[in-house]
Amino acid sequence: MQTEPPPNHLRVVIIGAGFGGLYAAKRLANAAGIDVTLIDRSNHHLFQPLLYQVATAALSPADIATPIRSVFSKYPNIRVVMGEATAVDPAARTVTVRDTGDFPYDMLVLATGAATSWFGHADWAGASLGLKSLGDAEAIRSRLLGAFEWAESRTDPDEIARLLTFVVVGAGPTGVELAGSIAELARSTLARDYRHISPAKARVVLCDAGDRVLSSFPNRLSAYAAARLKRLGVELKLNAAVELVDADGIVAAGQRIRSATILWAAGVAANPAAGWLGITPAKHGTLAVEENLSVAGHPDIFAIGDVMTRPGPDGKPLPGLATVAKQQGRYVGDLIAKRAATQPAPGPFRYRDLGSLAIVGRSAAVADFGWLRLTGVLAWLTWGGVHLLLLMGMRNRAVVYVTWIWSWLTWGRGARLITDTNGDLSVNRPETPPPYEGSTP
Amino acid sequence: MQTEPPPNHLRVVIIGAGFGGLYAAKRLANAAGIDVTLIDRSNHHLFQPLLYQVATAALSPADIATPIRSVFSKYPNIRVVMGEATAVDPAARTVTVRDTGDFPYDMLVLATGAATSWFGHADWAGASLGLKSLGDAEAIRSRLLGAFEWAESRTDPDEIARLLTFVVVGAGPTGVELAGSIAELARSTLARDYRHISPAKARVVLCDAGDRVLSSFPNRLSAYAAARLKRLGVELKLNAAVELVDADGIVAAGQRIRSATILWAAGVAANPAAGWLGITPAKHGTLAVEENLSVAGHPDIFAIGDVMTRPGPDGKPLPGLATVAKQQGRYVGDLIAKRAATQPAPGPFRYRDLGSLAIVGRSAAVADFGWLRLTGVLAWLTWGGVHLLLLMGMRNRAVVYVTWIWSWLTWGRGARLITDTNGDLSVNRPETPPPYEGSTP
Repeated sequence: MQTEPPPNHLRVVIIGAGFGGLYAAKRLANAAGIDVTLIDRSNHHLFQPLLYQVATAALSPADIATPIRSVFSKYPNIRVVMGEATAVDPAARTVTVRDTGDFPYDMLVLATGAATSWFGHADWAGASLGLKSLGDAEAIRSRLLGAFEWAESRTDPDEIARLLTFVVVGAGPTGVELAGSIAELARSTLARDYRHISPAKARVVLCDAGDRVLSSFPNRLSAYAAARLKRLGVELKLNAAVELVDADGIVAAGQRIRSATILWAAGVAANPAAGWLGITPAKHGTLAVEENLSVAGHPDIFAIGDVMTRPGPDGKPLPGLATVAKQQGRYVGDLIAKRAATQPAPGPFRYRDLGSLAIVGRSAAVADFGWLRLTGVLAWLTWGGVHLLLLMGMRNRAVVYVTWIWSWLTWGRGARLITDTNGDLSVNRPETPPPYEGSTP
Repeated sequence: MQTEPPPNHLRVVIIGAGFGGLYAAKRLANAAGIDVTLIDRSNHHLFQPLLYQVATAALSPADIATPIRSVFSKYPNIRVVMGEATAVDPAARTVTVRDTGDFPYDMLVLATGAATSWFGHADWAGASLGLKSLGDAEAIRSRLLGAFEWAESRTDPDEIARLLTFVVVGAGPTGVELAGSIAELARSTLARDYRHISPAKARVVLCDAGDRVLSSFPNRLSAYAAARLKRLGVELKLNAAVELVDADGIVAAGQRIRSATILWAAGVAANPAAGWLGITPAKHGTLAVEENLSVAGHPDIFAIGDVMTRPGPDGKPLPGLATVAKQQGRYVGDLIAKRAATQPAPGPFRYRDLGSLAIVGRSAAVADFGWLRLTGVLAWLTWGGVHLLLLMGMRNRAVVYVTWIWSWLTWGRGARLITDTNGDLSVNRPETPPPYEGSTP
């Protein structure tokens, strides 16, 4: 389905409402002579930096999600389409959305992000859980809490040990946050809740091929994080490349670790936008972009955020961070607005590094602002303040704030829900909700 | 798996941690000489009176759920088992839990509750959604929000009209709450979020075979609720028995109403505990109980809450309300504690009617305390206060309170998540999370 905007309007299509796409659209809200179509598979923008807190039962999914429509309800020049983009035709200048139709564009912004990548090991993917979407987070939550439940009702000590061993692969920020949170969940929140098992004896193993955790941070901050993780009871397996992942655990550096719960935080790959354009992708499926973030040979197509690759000021590729995507979204929005207004184009995109933060556990984080490096409580308070400010919407901020205070005071976690159960005693209950049987236009 | 308590202890097994089972277990917490095993399919106790707010995107699932283990973590004589009870052997005095084992009992409390019933119409069940569990609520939420999304991207006016027609069958408290909330969602929350459709023009039809809404309340309160619903734009179809439910809508009183979303709030039936005992069930699958809530012929087996039937003070069966289950849970807990302490048994169970409340919409509710009948803002504030007090846990109370204030001020709903999407662009993503492949003891 498509409606034509006034013929003199510039038609902008943005695919993806993560940080990049959302901030590009925000920059174009109410811009004269521009009609924006923002396409996303989900109905919500996800605040990914707190996703690990949903996975570890601290926050609810809705606390870190904002309906995309509600962000733009006041801006009639922005239309939101919930659907899956499946193809781009650069010659016809259209984007195809599954079950919906084609959307014509004058300028296209690809902000499709990245997904968990097992680097081609389909069998590893089937035996471990990644963390990119709310569905992923809920699956991890059910699996973590379920492992303790299953262990409580088993008698075989080997099986109980396997159920109470949690392996996190990848010691970047996500892996560190997950491992620290699982250790706290086991040692504090669940400590007194079982009669047969001791959750505090659960093993949490953080495994990485590199020689230190948080390798994108300075050495001193990595050392601090490693020490804090050890104090929480996390076993660090460094210089340990994963050789195998299966239903029984992993093999890393020649050693098998038996585990029923393997979380994969070791890699991402860009979503398949390069294929849409018939371009050979750069590393990890990304699109290489010019200095104004346009795709080589396609001056009206831009790629921003995790789906693009571009050397940063230090010569290394720009990192896959929310701040990169936001700055690029604003930049491309600005470029498009200027072009519509026939103003001079902005200069090349320049990434402004605002610093990096990672949380290790209760009252412990690391912060690297270049000119200032913090650890401990001060970094942790900074982390909390920054994330509350960046979170979208007053309701989410208030609820997350209340929940954090409560969690800090009680050592509790407010969202201990296992939603992925089998077994259902209902009468007459259909297996799944009835599917939507609608007409396809 | 089973462990034997000390041989002189009374072994009490409670099946179900709804209001009945939870309050029975609470009464027995720390009781000398009693070991309690509390069995539930879920890991959480659900505050069902607010379930419709999860279904209509106002609250998150975790806000109305409390981990059963955390309620009893301080009481070593109470063991929680997450699993599905599948059989009772009254001769051997054991309860079988699927994939877990048999649990011996000296006294058994059946608190298995009720499920949505389509009264044998399996095809109606497949074409409509009931509301009993958090899973049901999330399915309804995805369907409601999804209907507006689908309508936005369709062109056929008949199909758009079908997608924007919401039918609620059953005008008891749940049906009234759902219909009122859907009308508010469409007319206020979503009003400005779409470009092609007008959510405010959505039809919300509340259908019942009886001649008034809220038939368990006095006539005056029913009339008030009906007037408020009409003002919200809900179409009332009374004296309209449903004759057919299918993928295209319903037929009621000979008239077809085309709708893509049919919510079924018309009936419940007890979960199949009667079958476990080989007893012919009473009406709607319930177990008839004696004056001390024991099952006829089984003096050591009790049935409480929605799974039992017993005439109330007015001669009519006790209603399926949380207060009935809670009072019965406390009563049976007390009876068991007295028996273990060889004290005299309490007198017959007497239901104390504390009044009924139902919410119709923003600032509107009805309250019937017998001696006092309220409508409007006062009833609405009473409803809010009572439900906040009854909700379990300070975190849930604080979050629900903050969310309600925010919703009242902004007309917003904080949990507008469609979680049940198809379409997924992830790389290498397995279809479903890997199943737990554990040993069965």
